[in-house]
Amino acid sequence: MSRMMEEIREQPEALRRTFEAERGHAAEFKKFAAGRDFRLIVLVARGTSDNAALFGRYLLEIATGIPVSLCAPSVHTLYNARLDFRRALVIGISQSGAGTDINMVLRNARKQGAFTVAITNEAKSEMARLTDETFLARAGKQRSVAATKTYTCQLMLLYLMAFALGNQIELGEVNKIPGHVSQALKLAAEIREIVQRYRYMRQCAVVARGLNYANAFELALKLMETCYVVAERFSSADFLHGPIAMIERDFPVILFAPPGKAFVGQRLLLRKLAGLRAETIAITSTDVRLPEATRMIRIHGKIKEIYSAIPYIVPGQIFAAQLAEVKGLDPDRPRSLKIVTQTV
Amino acid sequence: MSRMMEEIREQPEALRRTFEAERGHAAEFKKFAAGRDFRLIVLVARGTSDNAALFGRYLLEIATGIPVSLCAPSVHTLYNARLDFRRALVIGISQSGAGTDINMVLRNARKQGAFTVAITNEAKSEMARLTDETFLARAGKQRSVAATKTYTCQLMLLYLMAFALGNQIELGEVNKIPGHVSQALKLAAEIREIVQRYRYMRQCAVVARGLNYANAFELALKLMETCYVVAERFSSADFLHGPIAMIERDFPVILFAPPGKAFVGQRLLLRKLAGLRAETIAITSTDVRLPEATRMIRIHGKIKEIYSAIPYIVPGQIFAAQLAEVKGLDPDRPRSLKIVTQTV
Repeated sequence: MSRMMEEIREQPEALRRTFEAERGHAAEFKKFAAGRDFRLIVLVARGTSDNAALFGRYLLEIATGIPVSLCAPSVHTLYNARLDFRRALVIGISQSGAGTDINMVLRNARKQGAFTVAITNEAKSEMARLTDETFLARAGKQRSVAATKTYTCQLMLLYLMAFALGNQIELGEVNKIPGHVSQALKLAAEIREIVQRYRYMRQCAVVARGLNYANAFELALKLMETCYVVAERFSSADFLHGPIAMIERDFPVILFAPPGKAFVGQRLLLRKLAGLRAETIAITSTDVRLPEATRMIRIHGKIKEIYSAIPYIVPGQIFAAQLAEVKGLDPDRPRSLKIVTQTV
Repeated sequence: MSRMMEEIREQPEALRRTFEAERGHAAEFKKFAAGRDFRLIVLVARGTSDNAALFGRYLLEIATGIPVSLCAPSVHTLYNARLDFRRALVIGISQSGAGTDINMVLRNARKQGAFTVAITNEAKSEMARLTDETFLARAGKQRSVAATKTYTCQLMLLYLMAFALGNQIELGEVNKIPGHVSQALKLAAEIREIVQRYRYMRQCAVVARGLNYANAFELALKLMETCYVVAERFSSADFLHGPIAMIERDFPVILFAPPGKAFVGQRLLLRKLAGLRAETIAITSTDVRLPEATRMIRIHGKIKEIYSAIPYIVPGQIFAAQLAEVKGLDPDRPRSLKIVTQTV
């Protein structure tokens, strides 16, 4: 079994450890935050962690009402902008906590008046040292180049941040997420069959919306890194504003379609794609019917949409890891990549 | 000549008209904004206008020091979040001013305390009616489905916003932009030769960083809409965090590489891509040497990086319009698209 697949399977445990270890910390931070009146949240990250940040962008606005900005690191590292970060909470997200540019942004943000938080897997990292507060992922050492368990543990910590900063996240529901992930892992055998069909897939689009939008980016990144598939990622709304023109017969489109507010739009898009005779793969729930989909991967169990992002990426991770193997590639040795990438 | 190509050529005039008509308005708005102390700018858009917003995200932070957030419309339209928009300036960008979801966000933002601005090409649009202030693009009627002149006129108005909200933009320099665009248009004959080579290109990546990052999105969108090329778009920093794994011999990568702060990183990436024997097309300046590039499209004349985004997209627009024709496609009739797309 690949390291990537091993780490995918470690997720229920990793998520449980992370939740248990940091829930008390989150409750303390909730008291602290109540006194600070944060008016802006800025998320700073790269690569897979930036996909976690994209999730945070939706979750934190929806659950706290505080506007969120995804940081453009070059604004700080190349153009030396000085931003007004009074009453801003700036959260760095990094598996290793070692990214030079991200840490440079955090250091500047602190000088410019921000309160800074690290979400990292490494307690002794530079990021943990230089920020005011660290929320620590307990994913265990990441040995796979393609990040899986660190992504979902980052999402878990973003739930705790949303709990701390607002009043819409219930810890009792967050506590159920590792169980949902265990359910999703049971789909591995079924997905192993399905990926055969995509042995020769060279390009595809991954489409989602709202609380699963970040998962489209994350699955596309896994497909690029481990399967060398040219995978585009879109919000279903933006997809209709142009990119749909490139969809022709056979073009594969993977859709995240959990039940919830974003579902109706995904179903409409699926119908439109069926009309264009595209190939569609829906990652969805056993609770819904999507007869237009060419293939469905369906997660069992009732999961409220706001808690769906972690379990729903899991079939995507498995899909990428197994497709790589079916294509004769080693998902643990992507070309041209290392675990930690330095950019400024 | 296609309508798309006609509208590309109308840009110097359209930009000049827009600048002349709104510069006084921007100077007035500068006085008004000085009294408001905006702490956050939120940009709301879809499709090509969202690429303009992405440019605004960089320009406004760099030139004004006010943090910028790109709005996720679904947070408002699907999840009904109520955001704290006190002291926020919320700017809607839309060619038609008719996008249902964008207008819904603007209406909500106003209720939640924001000052709202419309950047649109249609004076009588719903967006112009419902916002506090309208900055009007004078692009002339858009008849091409693929937006070109409306994109650059939106960028022009974002320069005027950056002038009004900060002190780094000089109107004398902005005034030179139409002239730079005229220079860039002279590359049309050369680009017509170059595109022959890409007659059978089915996929590519477009890579840029910082102030030209939005142009990567915009060129990729034009290639998807008019040429049906599966065009990925990346920041060069993010590109190294994963997607570079999919690059193999012959894979085409288009890079925006104007002289400036982002140039060194682009040149490093170009070298790395040359090492992987990828095909590279650099949109750059006659002032620089990039011997590793497979093909270069070089703009004449000194252009400061902060004023480069409008002239640098022009060779990209021409590339897409002419590649469509070389592929036997009509750039004015993209499959599955209309000029105005409604989403909620």
